[in-house]
Amino acid sequence: MAITVVGSVAFDSIETPAGKRERCLGGAATYFSLAASFFTDVRVIAVVGEDFGPDEQAVFNARKIDTAGIEHAPGKSFFWEGSYLDNLNEAKTHNTELNVFGAFEPKIPEAYSDSQFLFLANIDPVLQRRVREAMPHARLVAGDTMNYWIKDHRPALMEVLKGLDVLLINDTETKMLTGSRSLVLSAAKIFAMGPKTLVVKHGEYGATAFFSPSDSKTAEHVARRAFHVPALPLEEVVDPTGAGDSFAGGFFGYLASQAELSPKAFRHAMFYGSVMGSFAVERFGTERLQQLSRQDIDHRFTLFRDLTHLD
Amino acid sequence: MAITVVGSVAFDSIETPAGKRERCLGGAATYFSLAASFFTDVRVIAVVGEDFGPDEQAVFNARKIDTAGIEHAPGKSFFWEGSYLDNLNEAKTHNTELNVFGAFEPKIPEAYSDSQFLFLANIDPVLQRRVREAMPHARLVAGDTMNYWIKDHRPALMEVLKGLDVLLINDTETKMLTGSRSLVLSAAKIFAMGPKTLVVKHGEYGATAFFSPSDSKTAEHVARRAFHVPALPLEEVVDPTGAGDSFAGGFFGYLASQAELSPKAFRHAMFYGSVMGSFAVERFGTERLQQLSRQDIDHRFTLFRDLTHLD
Repeated sequence: MAITVVGSVAFDSIETPAGKRERCLGGAATYFSLAASFFTDVRVIAVVGEDFGPDEQAVFNARKIDTAGIEHAPGKSFFWEGSYLDNLNEAKTHNTELNVFGAFEPKIPEAYSDSQFLFLANIDPVLQRRVREAMPHARLVAGDTMNYWIKDHRPALMEVLKGLDVLLINDTETKMLTGSRSLVLSAAKIFAMGPKTLVVKHGEYGATAFFSPSDSKTAEHVARRAFHVPALPLEEVVDPTGAGDSFAGGFFGYLASQAELSPKAFRHAMFYGSVMGSFAVERFGTERLQQLSRQDIDHRFTLFRDLTHLD
Repeated sequence: MAITVVGSVAFDSIETPAGKRERCLGGAATYFSLAASFFTDVRVIAVVGEDFGPDEQAVFNARKIDTAGIEHAPGKSFFWEGSYLDNLNEAKTHNTELNVFGAFEPKIPEAYSDSQFLFLANIDPVLQRRVREAMPHARLVAGDTMNYWIKDHRPALMEVLKGLDVLLINDTETKMLTGSRSLVLSAAKIFAMGPKTLVVKHGEYGATAFFSPSDSKTAEHVARRAFHVPALPLEEVVDPTGAGDSFAGGFFGYLASQAELSPKAFRHAMFYGSVMGSFAVERFGTERLQQLSRQDIDHRFTLFRDLTHLD
C-alpha cells in the first residue's frame, strides 16, 4: 500500500567527529521516503527551491519515489547547519534558513488521495492537520514532532494528535509533551490525546513502542504491552542526522507492506525501523540509504534477531 | 555452584523523587548476594561495624546467604548518603564515610575456597586482586569497578582485569577505561586487557554484552557477537540504588546455576540480570529483593521475552 509523506526536503551542512559535509541532501521527508521505499511505494509532499536540481531529483528517482507532490518555488530550499562534536546523540544547530519552506502550503496531488498510509513528518502542526484532513480515508496515520511545537504551539499540536494512530518522538519530546519522567505513564497520557501507539526513540539505545490496551487503561497494562528494539552496536556512527526519520521510514514502510496490521507486524516494523536507522548513521547524509539493497536489509534484520533473541 | 562475592556491606541514606530513607541496608555485596541467592548458594566476604546488628543479619539469613566471611570490626559500617533528584540515572553523593571499610583486609574462610564462581564487586583493585589470587581455581570470575579506580588507580586495575573473565561496568566507565566512544571498539580494547566478556550497563536502557570472538579480533566480529537486554519500562523507579549490583547478581547467579556456560546460558543470564535490576528499583534499598519469590522472577522473565521477541 502506498504511503504519502509530508515534510521537509532540505540541504544540510553537517560536522561530526568523523568529518564534515557541505549541503548534502537532507530533510525528514527525504530520509523517511528513502527508507520506506525499500518496502512500499512512497509519495512525497514538500517544497524545494531552485537549488534542488537534477542530482537531487535523481536520488528520489533511483528509488522510484513519486515526487509529483514536491513543489518547486522561486528561492532557496530549507537549509540546516549543525554539528555533533561533543555528543552524537544531540545536534547543535548553527544555522537554520527556512527559505521556501517558510511559506510552505502543502498541495496534495489528486493521484495521492488513495494513499492508505500517511506520515506527517516534523513540520508546523497547522500544516500537519491540513494534510490529515485532506486525506480522511487513510487507514493508518503516523506523525513526528519536536520540542518547538510542543512548547510553543501546543493547542495546534493537540489537534494533530487527535488524528494520529501512531506518534513517533524521542525521550526528551515525550517528557516535554506529558510532564512525566516515566515512559509508561507518558504513554498512558498520550493515548488519552489520540494516538493508539507511541514509539519513543532512544537514539543509540534503540526505541520502545507502547501499544494502547483495548481492554484497560491502567499504567500496568500499558507496561505489559511494550516492545523494545535496541540500536545496532556500530564501530563508528559517522553521522546521526536522519536516524530517527530513517527509523520512521523503515517502521512505517514495513507496516504499509503488510496485509494485516497485527501486533506481530508492529513488532517486526520496530525491527525494520532500527535496521534502517542503523544504516542511515553509517555514512554522511543519505549516502548509505542510497546504496542499500533489500538483501542488505534482510541480512541486518537477522543481526537484530541475534542481538535480542534467546534462542 | 556456589558464588563467593567480595564487596561492600553498608548503610545508605537515599533521597529520590519518590521519597527518603535513612540508613537502609545497602552496599554492592548486599544487593549482589540477595539477587544471586535466588539462583544458587552465595558466600560473602565483607566487613561491617558495630551498627550491623541482628536485623541486618536476618536479611542475609532469610536468603540462606553464607556470611561467615563478613568480618565484624570495632567502629561503624561503610555509610553512603546520596540523592537522585534531578536525574534517576546518576546519583549525587552527599557524604561517604568509609569507616571500618577503610582498613578492609578481605579474609577468605576455608570453606569458601571451593567456590567455582567469584564476583569482585566494586572495591579497591588491590583487594580485588588479592581475593582473585587466593582463589586460583575459580571457573568463572566476574568483576565491577568505578570511575575513581579507572582514573586514579589504573595500573592496579589493569592487573585485576588480567584475571577477569567478565567485566560488568556502565557506559561512562567503559568510555573512561578505553578512551573510545564506540562500545564495539571499547569491547575490542577490553578483550585485549583480559576479560572475554564485557557487559555494559545502560541504566534505564538495559545492558549490552559483548563476547570475545575466538576466531577473529576485528571490531566487526565483536559487533556480530553482541546481545542486548532492555530494562523493563516501569510506572515508577522508586530508588535506582543497587540496580547495577542486582543486575550483576541475577546475571552471575543464573550462570552459576547452569551446568554449561554456553552462549545460550549467557543470553539467559542477561535477561535474569535485567529482571533482578527491575525488581531492585521498585522499592527503596533492598526492600523488594527481600520480598521476592522465584515465581515473581519467572513471571517477570516472560515479560522480558514479550518485550523483546518477535514471535
